[in-house]
Amino acid sequence: MNIFPLIGIGISTLNSKKEQLDVRYHVILSKDHEILNTHKIKLPKFEKLEDIINQTDDDQLELELSKLLSVKEGQKLVIYKIVKDDNVSDISEAYLKLYLLSLRICKPNSINLKNIFTVLPNVAWTNQGPVDVDEIDLFRTRNGEFSVRSVDKFPCLTDYIIPSGVRIADASRVRLGAYLSEGTTVMHEGFVNFNAGTLGTAMIEGRISAGVIIGKNSDLGGGCSTMGTLSGGNDVKISVGEDCLLGANSGLGIPLGDRCIIEAGLYLTGGSKVEVLDSQNNITEVVKASALSNQNDLLFIRNSITGSIQCKPNLKSVVLNETLHKND
Amino acid sequence: MNIFPLIGIGISTLNSKKEQLDVRYHVILSKDHEILNTHKIKLPKFEKLEDIINQTDDDQLELELSKLLSVKEGQKLVIYKIVKDDNVSDISEAYLKLYLLSLRICKPNSINLKNIFTVLPNVAWTNQGPVDVDEIDLFRTRNGEFSVRSVDKFPCLTDYIIPSGVRIADASRVRLGAYLSEGTTVMHEGFVNFNAGTLGTAMIEGRISAGVIIGKNSDLGGGCSTMGTLSGGNDVKISVGEDCLLGANSGLGIPLGDRCIIEAGLYLTGGSKVEVLDSQNNITEVVKASALSNQNDLLFIRNSITGSIQCKPNLKSVVLNETLHKND
Amino acid sequence: MNIFPLIGIGISTLNSKKEQLDVRYHVILSKDHEILNTHKIKLPKFEKLEDIINQTDDDQLELELSKLLSVKEGQKLVIYKIVKDDNVSDISEAYLKLYLLSLRICKPNSINLKNIFTVLPNVAWTNQGPVDVDEIDLFRTRNGEFSVRSVDKFPCLTDYIIPSGVRIADASRVRLGAYLSEGTTVMHEGFVNFNAGTLGTAMIEGRISAGVIIGKNSDLGGGCSTMGTLSGGNDVKISVGEDCLLGANSGLGIPLGDRCIIEAGLYLTGGSKVEVLDSQNNITEVVKASALSNQNDLLFIRNSITGSIQCKPNLKSVVLNETLHKND
Repeated sequence: MNIFPLIGIGISTLNSKKEQLDVRYHVILSKDHEILNTHKIKLPKFEKLEDIINQTDDDQLELELSKLLSVKEGQKLVIYKIVKDDNVSDISEAYLKLYLLSLRICKPNSINLKNIFTVLPNVAWTNQGPVDVDEIDLFRTRNGEFSVRSVDKFPCLTDYIIPSGVRIADASRVRLGAYLSEGTTVMHEGFVNFNAGTLGTAMIEGRISAGVIIGKNSDLGGGCSTMGTLSGGNDVKISVGEDCLLGANSGLGIPLGDRCIIEAGLYLTGGSKVEVLDSQNNITEVVKASALSNQNDLLFIRNSITGSIQCKPNLKSVVLNETLHKND
Repeated sequence: MNIFPLIGIGISTLNSKKEQLDVRYHVILSKDHEILNTHKIKLPKFEKLEDIINQTDDDQLELELSKLLSVKEGQKLVIYKIVKDDNVSDISEAYLKLYLLSLRICKPNSINLKNIFTVLPNVAWTNQGPVDVDEIDLFRTRNGEFSVRSVDKFPCLTDYIIPSGVRIADASRVRLGAYLSEGTTVMHEGFVNFNAGTLGTAMIEGRISAGVIIGKNSDLGGGCSTMGTLSGGNDVKISVGEDCLLGANSGLGIPLGDRCIIEAGLYLTGGSKVEVLDSQNNITEVVKASALSNQNDLLFIRNSITGSIQCKPNLKSVVLNETLHKND
Repeated sequence: MNIFPLIGIGISTLNSKKEQLDVRYHVILSKDHEILNTHKIKLPKFEKLEDIINQTDDDQLELELSKLLSVKEGQKLVIYKIVKDDNVSDISEAYLKLYLLSLRICKPNSINLKNIFTVLPNVAWTNQGPVDVDEIDLFRTRNGEFSVRSVDKFPCLTDYIIPSGVRIADASRVRLGAYLSEGTTVMHEGFVNFNAGTLGTAMIEGRISAGVIIGKNSDLGGGCSTMGTLSGGNDVKISVGEDCLLGANSGLGIPLGDRCIIEAGLYLTGGSKVEVLDSQNNITEVVKASALSNQNDLLFIRNSITGSIQCKPNLKSVVLNETLHKND
């Protein structure tokens, strides 16, 4: 990515030891253009901001920015520069990269997220904002009802960014760092991890694991699974092409081409042996599913009489219901 | 439905352009009787309300109602009449029909919901109420913590109505417009779409898609799927009869009769070929599952040695655990 | 359990009829030691507390405790003693036992929870605290936004206790009474019922039903199911040994030994007939899956050509990704 260097300006919530819990970026700018400017404020030059970071300025600008963004007690102003795409070194960098993904600046798998789990602290996400897990009892005894939505290293996407033209029926199920294209609908049973997402209009009622990308006009049926590489032992990056349908409760363990269908209830792992059928329904060969990776126009079923997994030429086309994706 | 004409009185939250985001109905009355009256106020005559709608009254009553229901800044009073069951024409009509479903006045599929997706705006459902998705940044910068629960055209049922005698373990997963009968328990993995629901006591740990109806004393196991008709390409309206069990992670693509069981993990699509067995376990015929639609006393399994889907006479009876459904 | 007798001191939220809705325990002590002391206050002697319960004291101490714990309008102080492990007799006892589970004092299935469903009232869990389901309209009309998170007999774990060293990505999906060991990560699709949980580091992306225990270093893949005994007709208590992997969308209906794997998408019920293979892939016998209960080093798959469920010696070892479980 030639997006770097770039600078982000945001606000970090602190615990009682003044340690950062998160960063909410309000401004992101590269040398040449603004990527984000939530307050639509007149921004200083890139070089001016570098002076602050290098502590060679006179603090005036920093104070002004603090006031503009209304930094409160228990928070601090963050001005952070990423020079090049190295491993994630601290929480400000982690959040800045997660923003770049969810703002649709960087596609999943195009940016270095190594060490992000190590860098991010485990935080209680509450109705009173992010809270240090170890300081939770302090908050519980304050005035006002206190409820915890999540205890996790990643916050919900929608508490930081709501991308245009998307619906997310249950906001708990999409992490900051998800890449959701215009026209994406994530239903209640859908899930999108960080560094994962959709490249166009899509109906997501299944789970998009970290690293997994879904092509445009594809439909992930309710409860379907895409294998991830973070846990559970899968090594291959999974993806779904364009105009595909993963049936409800199905599963995918190979990178799928365009115009492919996996029958509802069928879990296709890379190691599954598959009978390949021609258009006359004759078995032409038996291969591992992984050998069919990225091939187009395939229909995968389990033959309900013989019990074998079969792959046929796919003749049906998947058409999304337009009214479900005009998300205005 | 001969319920119409009827009139609803409610409060609508507005965006900054004075456009409606939702309607919370406090009163619904047909010519003859009250359907809803949350404030238990003495209601005006139906004809009097029609005068307000036709703007032939003197505004006095409208003012009174606004006061009684305490309409606030950023809200407006809605008095809406549905004359007959036409396509949904605006947001007030959409909400009134969703209320009729969730108040158990109209059964799923008995009422015209055409155009509802077009009519409903996409709204951010937040801890500060419904917010226009395009005005979200404005709210974020206000005082007080701001968190988003959902970005969707439909709100959660329980933020508008809590039907008597139900448990809903995760309120995010039941939309306004769901029809939940007394004695229904929707567990954390359960889901109920609008225009869908249960006709009696039921344990719901699976997903009830739009248009799907579940008969009394039936049990939808964890993660089970019922095929919907809104997306994914299924055309037939799915239903489940009485005293049925859909096993965990199973799926259903046909209308099911009474006292039927689908084995855990088996996805029965309409096109699945099924071996039909008699009570001596002899295969009597092979049919498409759709041919067994609405037949009673069937047990569907996948033979774990031959791999074929089989249908046998069901001799077991499904009995719900009573203590899980006394929801008081 | 020889933990009894013990005494809990907490605060109960009341409905308008002064009936208890919940208990938040701040202190739990057995005769010999403190189990919980959220306010780190100097505690009275066990016998002194017994005097309060027996109403043989002079009320002074009770008043002091009320002040220390800041009992508010609409709440009451609860001082409750469990003498021995009888059936659950009231709501204070129910909560005290749920605390013992989630505080990791009592393992699942080691404590008498009979009648807990009968004893617990159905409560609306809202952003304004627990509310009587029948009094919900009263709250809706108060000032301030009102939203309902759950209508259930059990609250979310994290609104009462956050165990150390755990992540719970979606707090709605873990009930109070869950037993989560240090190093447990419950992802968005994970679920843990009361009286169920993990005995060590674990990745939970599937559902742990009531009564089910997961051994250390095991991985429950996304959407996998463990059969419960509360509903759906299973009688055998299910468990998972150490170093096991349940693949995504799989299911388990037998107690599983150590170092076992169930292939993604395979639902293994107790009654499934299974072909047992030796290390040369010869079928040595066909048994019901229940006959393989608690045996170690097994790999269960569905042969994707013959469609039969097969069990082979498992040679792969399951290794959890460490960085996902350092939950600090």
